[in-house]
Amino acid sequence: MDLDVEVLDTTLRDGAQASGVSFTLQDKLSITERLDELGISYVEGGWPASNPKDLEYFSKVKELGLSRSEIVAFGSTKRRGTRADEDQNLGAILSADVRTAVIVGKSWTLHVKKVLGVTLEENLEMIRDTIDYLRAHGLHVIFDAEHFFDGYREDPEYAVKVLRAAEEAGAERLVLADTNGGSLPHEVARIVQEARRSVHADLGIHAHNDSGNAVANTIMAVVEGARHVQGTVNGIGERCGNADLIQVLPALVLKMGLRALRSDAPREDQLRGLTALSRHVYKLLNMQENPYQPYVGSRAFSHKGGIHIDAMLKEPRSYEHVDPELVGNYRRITISELSGRAALLNEARRLGLEVDKDDPALGKALEEIKRMEAEGYSLEDSDATIRMILMRNLGISADQLGVIYWSVNVSREEEGDVESIADVIVRFGHQVRHGRGRGVGPVHALDSAMRSAVGKLADELSGVSLVNYKVSVVDSVEGTASKVRVYVEFSDGQRRWSTTSLSRNIVEASLGALVDGYNYVLLVDRVKARGSRQA
Amino acid sequence: MDLDVEVLDTTLRDGAQASGVSFTLQDKLSITERLDELGISYVEGGWPASNPKDLEYFSKVKELGLSRSEIVAFGSTKRRGTRADEDQNLGAILSADVRTAVIVGKSWTLHVKKVLGVTLEENLEMIRDTIDYLRAHGLHVIFDAEHFFDGYREDPEYAVKVLRAAEEAGAERLVLADTNGGSLPHEVARIVQEARRSVHADLGIHAHNDSGNAVANTIMAVVEGARHVQGTVNGIGERCGNADLIQVLPALVLKMGLRALRSDAPREDQLRGLTALSRHVYKLLNMQENPYQPYVGSRAFSHKGGIHIDAMLKEPRSYEHVDPELVGNYRRITISELSGRAALLNEARRLGLEVDKDDPALGKALEEIKRMEAEGYSLEDSDATIRMILMRNLGISADQLGVIYWSVNVSREEEGDVESIADVIVRFGHQVRHGRGRGVGPVHALDSAMRSAVGKLADELSGVSLVNYKVSVVDSVEGTASKVRVYVEFSDGQRRWSTTSLSRNIVEASLGALVDGYNYVLLVDRVKARGSRQA
Repeated sequence: MDLDVEVLDTTLRDGAQASGVSFTLQDKLSITERLDELGISYVEGGWPASNPKDLEYFSKVKELGLSRSEIVAFGSTKRRGTRADEDQNLGAILSADVRTAVIVGKSWTLHVKKVLGVTLEENLEMIRDTIDYLRAHGLHVIFDAEHFFDGYREDPEYAVKVLRAAEEAGAERLVLADTNGGSLPHEVARIVQEARRSVHADLGIHAHNDSGNAVANTIMAVVEGARHVQGTVNGIGERCGNADLIQVLPALVLKMGLRALRSDAPREDQLRGLTALSRHVYKLLNMQENPYQPYVGSRAFSHKGGIHIDAMLKEPRSYEHVDPELVGNYRRITISELSGRAALLNEARRLGLEVDKDDPALGKALEEIKRMEAEGYSLEDSDATIRMILMRNLGISADQLGVIYWSVNVSREEEGDVESIADVIVRFGHQVRHGRGRGVGPVHALDSAMRSAVGKLADELSGVSLVNYKVSVVDSVEGTASKVRVYVEFSDGQRRWSTTSLSRNIVEASLGALVDGYNYVLLVDRVKARGSRQA
Repeated sequence: MDLDVEVLDTTLRDGAQASGVSFTLQDKLSITERLDELGISYVEGGWPASNPKDLEYFSKVKELGLSRSEIVAFGSTKRRGTRADEDQNLGAILSADVRTAVIVGKSWTLHVKKVLGVTLEENLEMIRDTIDYLRAHGLHVIFDAEHFFDGYREDPEYAVKVLRAAEEAGAERLVLADTNGGSLPHEVARIVQEARRSVHADLGIHAHNDSGNAVANTIMAVVEGARHVQGTVNGIGERCGNADLIQVLPALVLKMGLRALRSDAPREDQLRGLTALSRHVYKLLNMQENPYQPYVGSRAFSHKGGIHIDAMLKEPRSYEHVDPELVGNYRRITISELSGRAALLNEARRLGLEVDKDDPALGKALEEIKRMEAEGYSLEDSDATIRMILMRNLGISADQLGVIYWSVNVSREEEGDVESIADVIVRFGHQVRHGRGRGVGPVHALDSAMRSAVGKLADELSGVSLVNYKVSVVDSVEGTASKVRVYVEFSDGQRRWSTTSLSRNIVEASLGALVDGYNYVLLVDRVKARGSRQA
């Protein structure tokens, strides 16, 4: 397939070098499959000399039956003073049994002399011998010129000599790496342009994000003729990370109209799986998503101001640089005036309710939400709270839990532990139950007391548990009497939902969020029981 | 002062438009002071027509006695069909009583016709009338050409007409805004270059990060001659945010050697406060820091691999694109504590203590801090907590408050108000005092009880009050039993200091921070009384 630019994903190799990142074999295979689906040309699966466990990956990956991506192995030039056929590093690459190897070599005089401790000429020999050796074993070679931009700035002639040595030995790609991530986009453009005049082989770019320009540097390199780009999913990598392919691909494919993926799909369909890919990798790594991440972040297409929403409804192009659905994301308009109705209708639909768009209940629900937001509630992420407001205004009711009385005592003696004991009296329909709970903190104790009372009251609530709890102070001017906003996330093993509550008293706010969370389940189950009849 | 590039910070205006972001008046004043310290030319403090509460900021900010930053107000062009002197929007700007206004006007035919609903000529008139009016009232005007790059792509002649209309009416800067954030760096370079040929006034750049190129686009614009840049601290802003000044400034000042800050300090010293500024803003917004953020992130200079550490020890330049201390960050290497010691020595100096750099107390204090950070404390902004650890290890002691017993009860009956009553028994030297307090929430009640006990114990504590209080959940995986981190800021009318405390119990964490805050005053006053004798 004839591509304008080929992509090499190094999530599993360079990405894995980030602190806090560690992939299991299953993780690596799963990500590889997704990259293959997307149409990524090369997947750099590991560095066998550095991580012998990677050999297991190279073996198992053959069983996946990939159709688009080629698996490549990474390694460095042979060690000084060693013959290529005795070098363990190269031996490991051969053991990986791949068709293509990526070899990194030094191109900055500083590194050659001070870090490797060899002469400039020895370094060139090491590069040549390494590539010769691998080519003699039938491998294709992609050469990564480490620290190329720093090297070029300090000694451009030598940096070019390194590229030429690699090219003459048969490397098919010469990848210019901004290893320290400190190059600015205009410098990258200039240097790539000059490098292109000095060699024949196709150039590549491997950018790092230490100065916040990895994506831009990748794009500028392509503009100047690079035909091979390297990066990672979500930009994970050492220090500030690598070039984020999630941001590079839409630029190349959707904005610059380039063929960069091994895919027969029309260009506008090639990236619809991008958001899912990004989230999958975060999930496997147990890392938090970045809501502000371009293209795929939850806030990437989130419009808040009334003016923007109004404009967006008139003309989507007015505040969106790309149609979110092209990258698998969707437009989030926060609950507000005009768009509020559309958003609420959407929520109703997702609950299985048929509501007419002119139903006055929508307006009333919106009013209530606006009032709450003015007080300091932040409802965007609290789906259950929003839906409950909607259902209540639609007249859907179900027996709900009500807390008649609650009290919590927190105390500690000088050498003792902190103790919290809570009592609640809960009403549910005609029943009234008492619950007592202990905990480390007051909210913990109240939650414990609630569950004790509630478990006796309603079966459907017995499997409910808290999975996330966040507190923020809404208005810190008033010191300790500020309003506190509590966000709580629940799960019953299958569904997840979240509520938010506000009060000057953190305990009351927490209890409010807890009670709403339980009541949501009761309401939703009532809706299900009724089918999709209108309120 | 003659700058190469002037910086306009719009954290308080464009940054405030981000979902989840909301600044109190105190927050805004605090940030303004820091920007003034840094030497930012303009601080865009708000949008009075859109947020009438902003007028309070414009009034109070005059009392800060700023010496470097000029405060500017934002607004849009007058409404269609309205006379400038009757336009509320412009009236609000005048009420802000600033010397310079930033006016945004439409430069994309799509927006003019479909969103504003006026003719292309009317739009030009609105721009002219608006700027004329403000100039007639003695204001300088900075013109923001909204959607300039999209507008230029669609109809370059009209986009230029817009700039010229603004220039002719007297706008002193013409800021090209990539409002949708979808422009790529080479496009920005080309368009800025062409725009420069079409007008005389200095150009500016206002980039958004929707395609991940905000920082790069800002740099490219400067390379092509723009002399005014806009951005926000930490890049906060709508959707994917604005250009991050934390990343732009090091590029301009340290890498490109430009004069961009109103500061007499040598260029390599101008950004040593950058990391602290970044963290301060995250803290005020109760937002999590981004460990991968270029320059200031906790991982930005974090070296994991053995090879890199080895190289780093041989030659710091080998894997670092800039010396982290130039941006107030420090190199985190598991082997070395050199930079931690330097930071503590600095704190000692600021306390007026003379400490020898080899004093074992420094090492012990560092150990304690590292242990606390591993548990989840975030000590960087809690100067008092750090200093107390240092002073304790240096053997400086003073009678300190100790809480022998505390208890707080929070309760509410169904129709009643929430009540919190707290009791504390506090020891100070040989004295023991009881204090009782009431409050809305448990921490409020405890603070009240503490002050009641403490006021009887130590005169120097009677003027101390809480001015800021923030709570964050450190590790939300454990639901309501998560660790909670409390940050408290105190003032005695002259000095301000802050403490932080951690616990699984929010009440205990809050009390800890309160007690530390009081004890800090006692210790520092003891240090002052002793003069600068070594411990």
